[in-house]
Amino acid sequence: MDRQKGIDQLFNPRSIAVIGASATKGKLGNDVLQNLIESGFEGRIYPVNPSGGKILGANVFRSIFEISSDVDMAVIVIPAQHVLSVVEECGRKGVKALVIITAGFKEIGHEGLEAEKKLVELAEKYGMVIQGPNCLGIINTSAPYNASFSAGTPRKGTIAFASQSGALMTGILDWSLMEKIGFSKFVSLGNKAHLDEADFIEAFGRDPDSTFILLYIESVVDGRKFMDACRKVIPKKPIFVVKSGVSSAGARAASSHTGSLAGSDTAYDVAFKQCGVMRASNMASLFDVAAVFDDMHLPAGNRVAIVTNAGGPGILTTDACEVSGLEIAQLSTETIEYLKAHLPPAASVYNPIDALGTAQPEDYAHCVEASLRDENVDAVIVLLTPQAMTKVTETAQILVDTRNKYPDKPLVAVFMGGNSMVYPRIVLTEGGIPVFDFPERAVHAIAELYHYTVNRDSLKEESIPVFKVDKKKTAEIIKSVQKENRRVLLGSEAHTIAEAYGIPVARIKLATSSEEARHLAEELGYPVVLKIASPDIIHKSDIGGIRVGLETPGQVEEAFLQILENAKTHMPNAMIYGVDVQEMAEKGKELIIGCSRDVQFGPLVMFGAGGIFVNYLKDISFKLAPMTRSDAADLIMETKIGSLLRGVRGEAPSDIASIEDTILRISQLVTDFEEIVELDINPAFAYQKGKGISAVDVKITIEG
Amino acid sequence: MDRQKGIDQLFNPRSIAVIGASATKGKLGNDVLQNLIESGFEGRIYPVNPSGGKILGANVFRSIFEISSDVDMAVIVIPAQHVLSVVEECGRKGVKALVIITAGFKEIGHEGLEAEKKLVELAEKYGMVIQGPNCLGIINTSAPYNASFSAGTPRKGTIAFASQSGALMTGILDWSLMEKIGFSKFVSLGNKAHLDEADFIEAFGRDPDSTFILLYIESVVDGRKFMDACRKVIPKKPIFVVKSGVSSAGARAASSHTGSLAGSDTAYDVAFKQCGVMRASNMASLFDVAAVFDDMHLPAGNRVAIVTNAGGPGILTTDACEVSGLEIAQLSTETIEYLKAHLPPAASVYNPIDALGTAQPEDYAHCVEASLRDENVDAVIVLLTPQAMTKVTETAQILVDTRNKYPDKPLVAVFMGGNSMVYPRIVLTEGGIPVFDFPERAVHAIAELYHYTVNRDSLKEESIPVFKVDKKKTAEIIKSVQKENRRVLLGSEAHTIAEAYGIPVARIKLATSSEEARHLAEELGYPVVLKIASPDIIHKSDIGGIRVGLETPGQVEEAFLQILENAKTHMPNAMIYGVDVQEMAEKGKELIIGCSRDVQFGPLVMFGAGGIFVNYLKDISFKLAPMTRSDAADLIMETKIGSLLRGVRGEAPSDIASIEDTILRISQLVTDFEEIVELDINPAFAYQKGKGISAVDVKITIEG
Repeated sequence: MDRQKGIDQLFNPRSIAVIGASATKGKLGNDVLQNLIESGFEGRIYPVNPSGGKILGANVFRSIFEISSDVDMAVIVIPAQHVLSVVEECGRKGVKALVIITAGFKEIGHEGLEAEKKLVELAEKYGMVIQGPNCLGIINTSAPYNASFSAGTPRKGTIAFASQSGALMTGILDWSLMEKIGFSKFVSLGNKAHLDEADFIEAFGRDPDSTFILLYIESVVDGRKFMDACRKVIPKKPIFVVKSGVSSAGARAASSHTGSLAGSDTAYDVAFKQCGVMRASNMASLFDVAAVFDDMHLPAGNRVAIVTNAGGPGILTTDACEVSGLEIAQLSTETIEYLKAHLPPAASVYNPIDALGTAQPEDYAHCVEASLRDENVDAVIVLLTPQAMTKVTETAQILVDTRNKYPDKPLVAVFMGGNSMVYPRIVLTEGGIPVFDFPERAVHAIAELYHYTVNRDSLKEESIPVFKVDKKKTAEIIKSVQKENRRVLLGSEAHTIAEAYGIPVARIKLATSSEEARHLAEELGYPVVLKIASPDIIHKSDIGGIRVGLETPGQVEEAFLQILENAKTHMPNAMIYGVDVQEMAEKGKELIIGCSRDVQFGPLVMFGAGGIFVNYLKDISFKLAPMTRSDAADLIMETKIGSLLRGVRGEAPSDIASIEDTILRISQLVTDFEEIVELDINPAFAYQKGKGISAVDVKITIEG
Repeated sequence: MDRQKGIDQLFNPRSIAVIGASATKGKLGNDVLQNLIESGFEGRIYPVNPSGGKILGANVFRSIFEISSDVDMAVIVIPAQHVLSVVEECGRKGVKALVIITAGFKEIGHEGLEAEKKLVELAEKYGMVIQGPNCLGIINTSAPYNASFSAGTPRKGTIAFASQSGALMTGILDWSLMEKIGFSKFVSLGNKAHLDEADFIEAFGRDPDSTFILLYIESVVDGRKFMDACRKVIPKKPIFVVKSGVSSAGARAASSHTGSLAGSDTAYDVAFKQCGVMRASNMASLFDVAAVFDDMHLPAGNRVAIVTNAGGPGILTTDACEVSGLEIAQLSTETIEYLKAHLPPAASVYNPIDALGTAQPEDYAHCVEASLRDENVDAVIVLLTPQAMTKVTETAQILVDTRNKYPDKPLVAVFMGGNSMVYPRIVLTEGGIPVFDFPERAVHAIAELYHYTVNRDSLKEESIPVFKVDKKKTAEIIKSVQKENRRVLLGSEAHTIAEAYGIPVARIKLATSSEEARHLAEELGYPVVLKIASPDIIHKSDIGGIRVGLETPGQVEEAFLQILENAKTHMPNAMIYGVDVQEMAEKGKELIIGCSRDVQFGPLVMFGAGGIFVNYLKDISFKLAPMTRSDAADLIMETKIGSLLRGVRGEAPSDIASIEDTILRISQLVTDFEEIVELDINPAFAYQKGKGISAVDVKITIEG
């Protein structure tokens, strides 16, 4: 069955069985049933337990087969050793959506992993979807139902939240009740044996009750599927992710925790960026943003008006705007005139609008109303400090009233203070105005609203370019290298593959005798470079394995012999294939273009400043292949050398179109051939516009 | 009088007069008197008001002269036009410390600024110190007194706080009451006409009741004085600063707000770093740190043990540690064995220590006790999520008990959740354990404790090196340039100054005829470079004003004439002094060493990767002059080219000692001659170790 149809059933069941329902207080099977009964679920609830009897006033069925009606969804909370047989029973009964709360699977090792594989087989055999195992359950505030052992049920809201950590969810649920943040769906992903984050992202995308998607994940199951799901959803709603396991130490903790194989964090960063997912650096900021996204219009741009009753907070807010990519709006003449007419003469009517420490509720109303009306303003931040004459609650109320008149622009408040702000903050929150204690958090939240619109609008419907290439020749070379049990391709082999994919290379040919070297040099044209051809010799120059600028046949023959001798002296056991003869490419801007392969996300293409100091400059950027032309253009422009290539200080611009082409052709190559685990062009020389690029040194490694 | 003695009087007065005390509710003069009376001040309080009578039960004096006893401190809260005469009266009465709350000075423009100057004259005439004007007042919880119009008095604590924004203080005061954060001193700086932030920093440093200094500033009055005060205090206590006006827009708001002239933010950043001040990026993080510093031991190192009852938060914490420069401690064998013996088998006894979702208070006690005892652990972070079997309050209590047994290591808690955590959090806070809602804030706070110790320990007693230089020659050149009303020095002049300060330069001489050019070329040795010598021509190469690699007398003469002709053709109105003849320096690693001058902090020296792409690589760093040798070494190593200079990939290291020398000599030059507003050496070539450095192009600009 289609997974999305299965999730529809999970989100909107007419009946739910709790298999493992228990009468014993403190047992999960009791918690789940109690939550379900108390959650106001309007469909049928079937407790199942071989002991029968009554629990919490409901008749208990001894097995799912005793239930005569259809069962849409079952929550399984029984010892691990019985789970497989019960899942099979559910399949036979025709249950389409299972939530397996029971732990003791992948996280305990090999045996558990095998059991999970069988779960998936059963899911496929019977056309079911399975959430979990090893999870807290699921809560749906719109159905409504609470099919989890959580302590408490979240408020109803528009945030769909899925988490790979059940314990984290319990903390967040408790916290959200205090902070009055509501959720539409609350999903504990567990071990993700069957349904994974991508499935839920897609489902949240289709869910009319969710406007905003939050995720806590430690890894993704399938990088490509995750990106596809996000790309589908982001044009409609924002996705915010906290991805932990960033640090090497964190990654260790992650793998010991859920047994998941964490991908490198770079690939996650790149993947999120490339499909428009917003990455939150920590949980607190995730929920600051959530508070603002819950039921608020998006800003049309990044121009912010700041209204304050004190200078200091106004400056802090201005600073924070600049750091976050927001602009301080230039107020229209009408607004300025209006403010001059309505505020005391000492007030600042420019942005930040300072209504002074004596500002009364009506002063705030004038400032906010004028800002909300102003076409130069996309969002409004209202600051208040409790000064002697400040009427805090009345100001909160007038802000709510004013906002209701102009509901289309985002408006957030910062009421700085403690106990005297408790009630005014409730007035604001209940009135639909998110309120913060310090300016930076408010600015951050508004900035994220804006950045989501930028991400959304930059996701273009753009196809992956496909170049005409010689795939057959490439396959032949790779096969021959594999036959020899080698992993590192010879320079001539790597260059031939590059040529087969239309990448302009400094031509290179393998010579096995000094005479052949001389012939090849004449064919390529002087001057030439000679390099030892051996998969065992990585640092060729260190052993005298490279000679450059050879101008005559005599020099070439002498160099050939000398290089071979050097190699034999320094690395007597190296397998030597001969000496590569290469034309000397004219020098250009030095670039590096490379590719590595990420476990979760596949080929990760790198571009940046090349040459021997790559590691010190670290002027590099990454994208995942396959790529669109915009991706390639972005990849170049994300580096500093990108701006150099455009031409600076009167220098002619470089051939950026050729660089893009080369990146796209590499992207195609590493997508076509999964055997290629590493590829490095360093340096590639970029020439002036119209004069192309030349790959000087191409290295390719295939899987062992 | 010595300002510090004056502040001692301000902090510990035996009597306080409130000049402008008022019987009218809502008037500042009433608020101040009431706060003072209610604050428990044990000395004498003298309300002063020309109307006399009684206010709040106290006898009112018609003028300060009516008071027969000594008055140590006076708070002035009367209309601005009367302030000067009252200050004079206070002087004559012998009051040593004044707090002027009254507004209407510098912030209203020229007239106010003049009045402030007179205030300072009076302060000096009578040996008084003045806080303000235009401020909220001062609160001292150890005296105790509240001499401000604040709504409420802060809790007693160990944080000394000074703020340039009074309104911000009111918000923070209110907030701190709710968060239970205490203060030792609470100072509103106001316009800083006399006492400034540096004076208070020094006083807080000497104050036995303060362990931690917090500042909110928009600018500093005197950069050098500020840095000196900080350097004096930081070995004893940490200083945290929020400096606003970071953004260009923010800087505009700052200058319109307090009329202060904001320095460039780079100089602030550099100054803070150079004297060990910790800069907080926002108010919230400032107070997270404050909560931890209030009464806690500093960690001996950066190795953290994490104790948790759930994997997810453990990973988030691990990530946050890595980002913040903390290490995950490698637990000792004893600890691991102890944990194995006391925790369930499924628990993770490595760091993060995961006591599992079933963890009971005793499990937490075992984990925390073992961590606090472990010599490999410098600080402990305890995480708790409210799971089914979690006893939250009991765990909080046992943490407090355990901590009391081992009080020497910092311990912070993260209790994730909402309402169910309210009481446990009080237990922790009252028991001296700071508690947070999300892991990142706890990690940040511990990291700041650690970074303070690093800053403190890196402040060495190191003298500024003084080289033997030719100051007289330099002064002569500058004088002659000033005489000609020029601001830009000729190349030969700039090079001569560099030589006078012992900076190795590629020698350069000015030729006014082709014959002289030929003679000079012979003197310097071929090949040479010729450059047009004109203060009006900045981009010499753009108009054909430079010729390099001239090998023969004929080439030199021809080039001389050609350059002059080019200059006359392209810039007919330029003042031309002739053509500079310069020896061709052998090429080395290209560096830039420069200096600009900051309004607040003086000479700001820059070092980095040089050449024509300086602006694109932006591989640069800054320090304020004068510098120690460690400063110079740090300046180099803060850049990426710093690591290249050390020698990489088998390349010989560069002559770093010579580069340091050059930086220090420039530092001395720009310190000696305040007339130099800009200096640029670009490029300087650095050669191999022992072979020095060569300044190829030196540009100097002096004040107009």
